[in-house]
Amino acid sequence: MIMNLTQKILKEHLLSGNMTAGEEIEISIDSTLTQDSTGTMVYLQLEAMNIDRIKTKLSVAYVDHNMLQTGFENADDHLYIKTVANKYGIVYSKPGNGICHQVQLERFSKPGWTLVGSDSHTPTSGGIGCLAIGAGGLDVAVAIGSGRYFVKMPKIFNIVLKGKLKPPAAAKDIILYILGKLTVKGGVGRIFEYSGEGVKYLSVPERATIANMGAELGATTSIFPSDERTLEFLKNQGRENDYRGLSADEGAVYDEELVIDLSEIEPLSAAPHSPDNIKTIRELAGQKITQVAIGSCTNSSYRDLVIVSRILKGKTVHPDVSLVISPGSKQVLTRLSKSGALNDIIASGARILECGCGPCIGMGQAPETNGISLRTFNRNFEGRSGTKSAQVYLVSPETAAVSAIYGVIKEPSILHKDIFDEVHEDDYYDDNMVIKSQGDMDAKVIKGPNIKEFPVNKPLEDSIFKKTVLKVGDNITTDHIMPSNAKLLPYRSNIPYLSEFCFSSVDSDFHRNCKNNEGGFIVGGDNYGQGSSREHAALVPLYLGIRAVIAKSFARIHKSNLINSGILPLVFADAKDYDDIEMFDEIGLNNLQSRFKSGEPIKALNKRTGQEMELLLQVTDRERDILLAGGYINYIMNFTM
Amino acid sequence: MIMNLTQKILKEHLLSGNMTAGEEIEISIDSTLTQDSTGTMVYLQLEAMNIDRIKTKLSVAYVDHNMLQTGFENADDHLYIKTVANKYGIVYSKPGNGICHQVQLERFSKPGWTLVGSDSHTPTSGGIGCLAIGAGGLDVAVAIGSGRYFVKMPKIFNIVLKGKLKPPAAAKDIILYILGKLTVKGGVGRIFEYSGEGVKYLSVPERATIANMGAELGATTSIFPSDERTLEFLKNQGRENDYRGLSADEGAVYDEELVIDLSEIEPLSAAPHSPDNIKTIRELAGQKITQVAIGSCTNSSYRDLVIVSRILKGKTVHPDVSLVISPGSKQVLTRLSKSGALNDIIASGARILECGCGPCIGMGQAPETNGISLRTFNRNFEGRSGTKSAQVYLVSPETAAVSAIYGVIKEPSILHKDIFDEVHEDDYYDDNMVIKSQGDMDAKVIKGPNIKEFPVNKPLEDSIFKKTVLKVGDNITTDHIMPSNAKLLPYRSNIPYLSEFCFSSVDSDFHRNCKNNEGGFIVGGDNYGQGSSREHAALVPLYLGIRAVIAKSFARIHKSNLINSGILPLVFADAKDYDDIEMFDEIGLNNLQSRFKSGEPIKALNKRTGQEMELLLQVTDRERDILLAGGYINYIMNFTM
Repeated sequence: MIMNLTQKILKEHLLSGNMTAGEEIEISIDSTLTQDSTGTMVYLQLEAMNIDRIKTKLSVAYVDHNMLQTGFENADDHLYIKTVANKYGIVYSKPGNGICHQVQLERFSKPGWTLVGSDSHTPTSGGIGCLAIGAGGLDVAVAIGSGRYFVKMPKIFNIVLKGKLKPPAAAKDIILYILGKLTVKGGVGRIFEYSGEGVKYLSVPERATIANMGAELGATTSIFPSDERTLEFLKNQGRENDYRGLSADEGAVYDEELVIDLSEIEPLSAAPHSPDNIKTIRELAGQKITQVAIGSCTNSSYRDLVIVSRILKGKTVHPDVSLVISPGSKQVLTRLSKSGALNDIIASGARILECGCGPCIGMGQAPETNGISLRTFNRNFEGRSGTKSAQVYLVSPETAAVSAIYGVIKEPSILHKDIFDEVHEDDYYDDNMVIKSQGDMDAKVIKGPNIKEFPVNKPLEDSIFKKTVLKVGDNITTDHIMPSNAKLLPYRSNIPYLSEFCFSSVDSDFHRNCKNNEGGFIVGGDNYGQGSSREHAALVPLYLGIRAVIAKSFARIHKSNLINSGILPLVFADAKDYDDIEMFDEIGLNNLQSRFKSGEPIKALNKRTGQEMELLLQVTDRERDILLAGGYINYIMNFTM
Repeated sequence: MIMNLTQKILKEHLLSGNMTAGEEIEISIDSTLTQDSTGTMVYLQLEAMNIDRIKTKLSVAYVDHNMLQTGFENADDHLYIKTVANKYGIVYSKPGNGICHQVQLERFSKPGWTLVGSDSHTPTSGGIGCLAIGAGGLDVAVAIGSGRYFVKMPKIFNIVLKGKLKPPAAAKDIILYILGKLTVKGGVGRIFEYSGEGVKYLSVPERATIANMGAELGATTSIFPSDERTLEFLKNQGRENDYRGLSADEGAVYDEELVIDLSEIEPLSAAPHSPDNIKTIRELAGQKITQVAIGSCTNSSYRDLVIVSRILKGKTVHPDVSLVISPGSKQVLTRLSKSGALNDIIASGARILECGCGPCIGMGQAPETNGISLRTFNRNFEGRSGTKSAQVYLVSPETAAVSAIYGVIKEPSILHKDIFDEVHEDDYYDDNMVIKSQGDMDAKVIKGPNIKEFPVNKPLEDSIFKKTVLKVGDNITTDHIMPSNAKLLPYRSNIPYLSEFCFSSVDSDFHRNCKNNEGGFIVGGDNYGQGSSREHAALVPLYLGIRAVIAKSFARIHKSNLINSGILPLVFADAKDYDDIEMFDEIGLNNLQSRFKSGEPIKALNKRTGQEMELLLQVTDRERDILLAGGYINYIMNFTM
């Protein structure tokens, strides 16, 4: 059977289901990764599963997000992750070893493997021919504990690369170009598979830059073939034994296709405040800037930073610009140091930050009020930099570095062509910031005071009577439900603390109302739970005793997180019933078990008005069983492990 | 006349007064430095003085404290300092250029000069034969604006260094040894002058380490002679023209003396929680550790970090240890990179932080709960690391690096003697992160929303009637008055915001009571205002309308800060009167002007009880005039500029 690359890998890993777009399939998972801001919750969930060994071939726990350590919380999280990794035989990557996606690419990911990671940029490993999917923490915990993952079979979108990039255009400009064409919604329900003769002109780190920002298209993942460039990369890492050639069969069929002529791509930027607000650097040239930030999982490879060092060599960063550089990994930093490239970077007046996510996730280097920041990162949402009024432009390292010298957005076409000579990479590597454990179920797991127990639901009761503790309008985001900022990020493993800030910008009494009424129901409008995938927006309400959210409609990922937490996502059969509910109305849900099984609408009685309304549960059979079990952890333990 | 080194420099700079210990003298100031956490207030005060040019030969504004930038506030402060420096012709050192004291030593300080800096470790430049004094922000602003500084003539304490250090004992161990002998109060009212044959075996950076931690002795400053080692240092910096030989005359007389035989000093540590809690490393050896932090203005020179690199070369940091290194300056970092030393450091698994103060001031790298941290810094007060339960040991770079490898406190005597071979320093330097301005009084000064106006008092009225808005007991510290932590440090230029936290741990209504009563009086017990020298503990009460603090007794520095702010520090003539005042009692102070001038006690009438009590003003004539003028800024403007 003739297959494309995605189909080949999925078929090798298929456990159940049909590989038809839109249908749920179950696949086996070779490897997982976590980072620390989501990882503590993953491992608390894993502990709750009471497994005796992990079911993946390789699981890696990174620390790359919360590295500022302005209080004890970050270091407590690191120690918890380190000790729990030791217990389960999970590889631990120390803070300073680098950004999870960069290190995973360098040291661990293999062509043809599946990878699930608790970070939306997990698809970076698609650059090496690995099928790599970002997922919620609980899905990753289940993948570690069961070796399984469920996903709706996406459409396969073929991106055919023709021709060859003309420097100074860079890999970053390719993905910015695609974002301009397809927008941030263009990848939803899709996997992007790259093909065509242009692929062979791109090194693995360049491919990784492109796969990485597939996340900004909303894609399930992106993947490149594994070829001689992949072998070259793996050899340089001492990993030639991990090589396996992989590509689509001749004549493979795709759901959709886009052909791109690389030779026509010019330096681009995503202007404020969206990764698909694409302009040419020609258009933007001359705009004064105050900050340049180079790094992130998108653009922090050795290749990227060597080009930057060549541009900065013998030059001085403009007096009005703060240039900060966060190398992607300890390997990158060491290679830069050995080759002398680091010297040229430092001498120019760049500020060297730790090998980690740093400013990309708003952990440090917030620009000044109204600052204009050029960043080689992947997201430029308003306020993400830590400064609400800042204007962030996403660009290639080439554009970033040359602009840092001039103090304005500058076309990299002014650079001498030698700058773009091929980068010959040193072959230094070592894993001395990685701790490998065989697993020891008797080993002590250290939970400092910032690590609080993770809430687990109970199997569904047949009747629930609760008060309405919140009524909100349309388009409530996960930022409304559970705010995330530099002040709250250190508390991602402390649900009780976070719960005090739940819905704080909407109703400052929400936390108290939940406490006083032993939980309750939330009533919402349309598109409830839009925005990020953070599962804290479900876990925190679970902790507060929320049993159901009754809304006009739900955003897809948040609905899934509610189900995973065992919170009922119920939809008004008649949207007008929304108007009849008032704050603190007591509502009774009856015969839940039988109605769930029969698929009939739920009857809900409003005690105040005496009126009955119909609520719908729009879920798959598996999701229904998860809700009956009281959440995904209970489901997995009862049904499949 | 035969003079010691201190007397020579003071005499050259004496403007008024007698050089008799305990008497106030006025000296001319050649140079000033500020860092960013105190600097914004210094420049707001300078602006309030309406001067047309600075009166020092050289003033430098550094950014080294608030570099994490988790919100817009830090970068707003940086931009303000940069633009105000440009206006007044003050040299601006960009964030990333290094720690003020390290850069000042390398690039700016001169033997025989006077330096006043708004940081307690300003005496570091004593290593180069500069008379360098740490002072409150307002004193520095006045020094910039007038070229003058007032200080009580200290006693001169001669420390005679005999013999030669035996490696692995290091300069750090010398000052730890002295701290063990003299304690943290041993330097109060004193200048430490180093002499003896042992001096010539110490390089300028080693001398600077010793002078730096004179601050922990409570000394006014510490100073070394300027000799051939000083010339060697200056030549390496391309500054041989700044050289001037300086030492005490043969037979010079001192107030006190301590003779130290360097050959008898062994590796030491200041154990938790005080810099004078000195133990030998032999005693502590084997203690498990979880963090090692190398850097700070005490131990971040090229020499220090080359020794560290030699120890780490080919080794791996212990898996249970996080080793963080903050180089002292961009020059140090670049030299390390050029010589290959940086490569050995990175390869071992050390985390490289920015060139700045970093963890030494609790800005990042807080240890985990109950963490044990070895630090090459200068202070180990409880909680200063950002983690209340952490145990911090102060050690030399030698002890720190070897312990990082073993995961326990380790005696550096196990190191091969080659480690201690003389360090030959690369002669790279450039000042491309320094912006020199000629001054332009028409230049725009940019004040982002985090920069708020600085409160200035009014000339003293003859009568004040106000309510008692706070009554507290004995030993109130400046931490009670104005808390300082990683969350509040970014607001040092925002007095209105800080004012909401004034006395917050003592009386959460204090801020509101001041607002509702248009300020008032504070009634205190003994030793009011002990602790740090932060002048925010006076400026914030001034902002809130506090007109006088009536107490049983005052701590010296805080009393001086109150006077500089124009807040009356009044002492009960009869301490029993303290008991008769209740919260919200209205108190009237009458005939202040005449009684100030005559020196008679102030009569205070308590409106509620109808009783009169006597209050004393215990100040010098100059201080009295400052209070009459309504604070130091008004005094300087009216009387001397």
